[in-house]
Amino acid sequence: MMRKSSSITYSVLSCYLPPDRYFGPDARQREIAQHLYGLVAKLPLICPHGHVDPRMFVEDLRLGADSGYDFGTPVDLLIIPDHYVTRMLYSQGVPLEALGVPRRDGGPVETDHRKIWQTFAEHFYLFRGTPTGMWLAHELVEVFSVEEKLTGASAQRVYDQIAAKLTLPEFRPRRLFERFNIEVLATTDAATDPLVHHQAIRDSGWGGRVIPTFRPDGVVNLDAPGWRQNLDALSQASGIAVQSYRAFVRALEDRRAFFKRMGATATDHAALTAYTGELAETEAEAIFARGLRGAATADDAARFTGHVLMEMARMSIEDGLVMQFHVGSYRNHNPLVFERFGPDRGGDIPIAGEFTRSLRPLLVKYGNDPRLALILFTLDESTYARELAPLAGHYPAVKLGPPWWFYDSLNGMTRYREAVTETAGLYNTAGFNDDTRAFPSIPARHDLSRRVDANWIAGLVVRGIVDVDDAEEMIRDTAYRLVKRAYRLDL
Amino acid sequence: MMRKSSSITYSVLSCYLPPDRYFGPDARQREIAQHLYGLVAKLPLICPHGHVDPRMFVEDLRLGADSGYDFGTPVDLLIIPDHYVTRMLYSQGVPLEALGVPRRDGGPVETDHRKIWQTFAEHFYLFRGTPTGMWLAHELVEVFSVEEKLTGASAQRVYDQIAAKLTLPEFRPRRLFERFNIEVLATTDAATDPLVHHQAIRDSGWGGRVIPTFRPDGVVNLDAPGWRQNLDALSQASGIAVQSYRAFVRALEDRRAFFKRMGATATDHAALTAYTGELAETEAEAIFARGLRGAATADDAARFTGHVLMEMARMSIEDGLVMQFHVGSYRNHNPLVFERFGPDRGGDIPIAGEFTRSLRPLLVKYGNDPRLALILFTLDESTYARELAPLAGHYPAVKLGPPWWFYDSLNGMTRYREAVTETAGLYNTAGFNDDTRAFPSIPARHDLSRRVDANWIAGLVVRGIVDVDDAEEMIRDTAYRLVKRAYRLDL
Amino acid sequence: MMRKSSSITYSVLSCYLPPDRYFGPDARQREIAQHLYGLVAKLPLICPHGHVDPRMFVEDLRLGADSGYDFGTPVDLLIIPDHYVTRMLYSQGVPLEALGVPRRDGGPVETDHRKIWQTFAEHFYLFRGTPTGMWLAHELVEVFSVEEKLTGASAQRVYDQIAAKLTLPEFRPRRLFERFNIEVLATTDAATDPLVHHQAIRDSGWGGRVIPTFRPDGVVNLDAPGWRQNLDALSQASGIAVQSYRAFVRALEDRRAFFKRMGATATDHAALTAYTGELAETEAEAIFARGLRGAATADDAARFTGHVLMEMARMSIEDGLVMQFHVGSYRNHNPLVFERFGPDRGGDIPIAGEFTRSLRPLLVKYGNDPRLALILFTLDESTYARELAPLAGHYPAVKLGPPWWFYDSLNGMTRYREAVTETAGLYNTAGFNDDTRAFPSIPARHDLSRRVDANWIAGLVVRGIVDVDDAEEMIRDTAYRLVKRAYRLDL
Repeated sequence: MMRKSSSITYSVLSCYLPPDRYFGPDARQREIAQHLYGLVAKLPLICPHGHVDPRMFVEDLRLGADSGYDFGTPVDLLIIPDHYVTRMLYSQGVPLEALGVPRRDGGPVETDHRKIWQTFAEHFYLFRGTPTGMWLAHELVEVFSVEEKLTGASAQRVYDQIAAKLTLPEFRPRRLFERFNIEVLATTDAATDPLVHHQAIRDSGWGGRVIPTFRPDGVVNLDAPGWRQNLDALSQASGIAVQSYRAFVRALEDRRAFFKRMGATATDHAALTAYTGELAETEAEAIFARGLRGAATADDAARFTGHVLMEMARMSIEDGLVMQFHVGSYRNHNPLVFERFGPDRGGDIPIAGEFTRSLRPLLVKYGNDPRLALILFTLDESTYARELAPLAGHYPAVKLGPPWWFYDSLNGMTRYREAVTETAGLYNTAGFNDDTRAFPSIPARHDLSRRVDANWIAGLVVRGIVDVDDAEEMIRDTAYRLVKRAYRLDL
Repeated sequence: MMRKSSSITYSVLSCYLPPDRYFGPDARQREIAQHLYGLVAKLPLICPHGHVDPRMFVEDLRLGADSGYDFGTPVDLLIIPDHYVTRMLYSQGVPLEALGVPRRDGGPVETDHRKIWQTFAEHFYLFRGTPTGMWLAHELVEVFSVEEKLTGASAQRVYDQIAAKLTLPEFRPRRLFERFNIEVLATTDAATDPLVHHQAIRDSGWGGRVIPTFRPDGVVNLDAPGWRQNLDALSQASGIAVQSYRAFVRALEDRRAFFKRMGATATDHAALTAYTGELAETEAEAIFARGLRGAATADDAARFTGHVLMEMARMSIEDGLVMQFHVGSYRNHNPLVFERFGPDRGGDIPIAGEFTRSLRPLLVKYGNDPRLALILFTLDESTYARELAPLAGHYPAVKLGPPWWFYDSLNGMTRYREAVTETAGLYNTAGFNDDTRAFPSIPARHDLSRRVDANWIAGLVVRGIVDVDDAEEMIRDTAYRLVKRAYRLDL
Repeated sequence: MMRKSSSITYSVLSCYLPPDRYFGPDARQREIAQHLYGLVAKLPLICPHGHVDPRMFVEDLRLGADSGYDFGTPVDLLIIPDHYVTRMLYSQGVPLEALGVPRRDGGPVETDHRKIWQTFAEHFYLFRGTPTGMWLAHELVEVFSVEEKLTGASAQRVYDQIAAKLTLPEFRPRRLFERFNIEVLATTDAATDPLVHHQAIRDSGWGGRVIPTFRPDGVVNLDAPGWRQNLDALSQASGIAVQSYRAFVRALEDRRAFFKRMGATATDHAALTAYTGELAETEAEAIFARGLRGAATADDAARFTGHVLMEMARMSIEDGLVMQFHVGSYRNHNPLVFERFGPDRGGDIPIAGEFTRSLRPLLVKYGNDPRLALILFTLDESTYARELAPLAGHYPAVKLGPPWWFYDSLNGMTRYREAVTETAGLYNTAGFNDDTRAFPSIPARHDLSRRVDANWIAGLVVRGIVDVDDAEEMIRDTAYRLVKRAYRLDL
């Protein structure tokens, strides 16, 4: 494709989605990057951590392929649920109501999806140079075969094209799952979730591997919204009356066993800080009792979470579930948005991180045990080289998760490789995960990651740091093998 | 120009000020960067934040073009007032006295400006690879038409050339203002400043737009040196007897209205931390009363500043003045230098920053209001991607100021773009400002910024991230449009 | 050398140790980098800070060249003592026992060095992209003339080659010292060390300059393991009965004088934080007395260290010894490894750093005195641009040490130059030091540093930031002159 700008002509360069995109400018590096990328471009996708709704793979079954789960309009699919998209427009003064984001109080929001799409298209320039812009370009071209650049002028034509695709059988969730070449997709599920959708998927005989992940934050964090109700749900799900800390631990063990039977290979934990620390059982009981009475303090909650994390590490050693730990998000920073629209609307803001001291109690007790696999995620890049890489380069239990959230991006992934590799090596990292609730963006995210890694490794080759043989091993490791091993999906 | 080094010949490369300077090495990226830079190289300069003395544009008028404001010698103009220059020589053991920096106690300092210039020239190698080195090279070549490289050997010849230029009519401040193609220049002025120079400029009928900026730190920070005298000045300037917190607020409102009438579009606030928090009116009154009695504690001062910042946000919503907030400079770190030579002599050192929690009270109350424009500046680059970009990419009120002070540099600006854009997008940033008291360095600073942005955007093009059409929009945005919009200079 | 990969052929690129390795991909930049590197590749090595055992240069003498100090097997030389190597394998589940690391309790460890070497070789892929990988490649090729790539398959052949070399006279320590072209090598020695090996080297008449460095941590830090015994040793070494703080200070002064007579030009100090602060003499005496009684608190220890650092600065002004300060390592983070194998086994993890406030008391008192040379080292890269470069770019006493430990790497050194230079300039940095206990790795480390600097400076040339003449000066400065001047080795 050739384009002509006002004053200068470039071949290839200004294509909408050039085949050599995201590779550095040097010709030799590009050539090697293209070669390495070519080795892994078609490998299956391993998705060990994400937030896709498992229901989409069930209803398809239950209700028949033609009348099953419905992605809705292009706006239902691509705009309303994607807080990466809506936060950017909100930051520029577009009310969330104008984007059709449902209000908790049922108040009026825009319902004309063509109008919402038009608003989105007219603001699409906001995403220049952002990962959301790159992912959406990929989705439009590769998933929906859109050839035009999305602008205010082309908005309605593009809408028509996507809407038409969404009516086709090959755009049913399971068909997309297969077309995307997903080898395994892990969801993230509350400890109390009965996993009925996962069961239905297993019962259906469909070959797609969709597995749950055990995320107990709602019952572990005493100050989580609805903790008491969550606890009741835990009692019900486990059949254990959770009236004491001791019973609480037993109930968690019971649920982990259930998740494992349902295919889970991992747990997931989120906290504002990486604080860990063991309580005496009597202390744990006392705090738990205060929680039950509604009398737990903020300090109680923090210490209880820090203690339960250590219990979770113990259980992981026993049951073999990989332990993920996501640290540093100040949730619901903006109460106006939270109260009107609920969580996950773009109002979560990172804070500075600290791992060396915070994680030490857990590591002292369990970090030398290779049966534990603790995968760490941070929102503070200054901890990459300073704390996380040295920890992962020493403790057998520690692996580093890929760049998380805001850093799941071209620059973010490049900085991660450059900050982490020299100290931790490649082999204490846990490959890529897409961490998305936007199902059609999955191929775009893996493709970006594979391209960034290919370009990074090609940079090592052209600088004489690794040879081509090693580079070919490394790209296969980053694209496929490391994640599979780290999440014990090869067992 | 061709140069021959001892053992290797490069065309272009080793020119003193090569026309394609600051662009990355790759030939394709350079070509695109040159094209993009060409689109904006001649655009007017928008200078919404800086420290140029407005007097220089007044006396010119009052005293007539030939006998007016005098830049003095090359040393008066380029060395003595520029703490970027003097701190570097001081760090290498050259006493500030030897550079002619006046002592507060009137003690002896070097008065032979040719000797000072010689000392400077012999130490000019210290600025290799620094922004000061780049700016000075630009000034010497582009403003003063110096063709020789500045060294100990060429020092006196270069001095002669600059001194000769400074006698010419076209080197009068207003002529330079016009030659520099400055569209608007904002100064920074105490809340108590009567703005007589600004008034004189307006009265003169000259077309140059020189506007004030409302900076109330001297009356807001209870522990500012001379706070009581500043308060008296505030009473006098506003005509309101500032004997209570309530009167203090009214006086500030009065002064803001005055500044606005005088053309101001913005306020500016500096603090060691980003702490904000609202006090009950009775608390604010009590602290203010302790301040008046000279009994305010450090904690009082911090809480009072944090409270008044919130009041300032409220007033900004009401009067539309853009609110700038500069965070993180530990002022006058070196008491020996401060006591002997006063503030702004290179002894201000950054500290680590925190915005997520500190700024939350202000953002919870006012951050969703698009009438507020809060432009944030940091001296801690680790906050760019971690806190500032996520805040700017969510809250409608927040914009990110350009890289400040030590980071107003080739690498600093590049790191900023790479850290900020993926999360905040380009359109939550506030363009460039030169933040300088060195008037003749203004074109150099804008030129460096435009080149760095052209190179950065060209890097996006060659990697297939944006197409050439988008790139052409982006460079116009970074060079001219964003800053004008962010500072409401287009209204 | 040509290699053919499965699908693509590269000349040069995939060589084991290509001659243009570590230079960036751009052809012009490479050419200039190669030119600059060529100017300094053969310059003598200045090693002002490291941990080589001085004994190796003594016994050679005492026992005769053929029967003297023995490096042992390749594993004794290259694996067992190198915690950069052993920590990486440990992090991947290889027990330290399997690598022959001696246990404190004398428990069994692997003694078959061929088996250990095989384990190492099979895990050598872990070092892809790491400085250890680069150093080892250099050592194998340049020091031991190994031509094969180290893999499980080649392991025993490579072992044979190294073992054979180690029996040759030219692989005696002094011959290697000369072959490595080491101009001066500083060791690091406890304040109580009698320096008998240094004395023996001096007495031998051998021309190699091996000098001590005064490191008093063991007597300064009240909570250092064995502090009381260290204090007794201090009494004995100084001939001063150290029963009071006052005597303690006198004993330190005495030992500094002794070290200086033995050729030392520098001291070295390590602390968890950069805290400094002066105590009243009575306070210092009281804390010291509590220390003697075994009753000092953690707070006592921190304040005492902060106070003695200030005393050390005073003494440095008096005796001219350069003061090095290494900040931020949380030592022995992993008690299991520490208890079983002792310190320096990979279990030291960095923490976040702070210099602006912590170092202020010392700088206020001594920082303006050019007689003091304070060289700062950090394990927190976020302090480079934020705190260290502004401090070094202002205070005459402050210089920045090179990237330390985990950052003594290709990316680490590049980040350092890019973060530090624009604010501190090149001339407030202290050149390179190898900081190693692995003697045969010294040439590799200096070579990597010289290549990285050549490439960085070449990047300045191709972007028109400095000209070739300046670049040639700069590479000579970074490779040789700066370090010699900073450590006062030219006096």
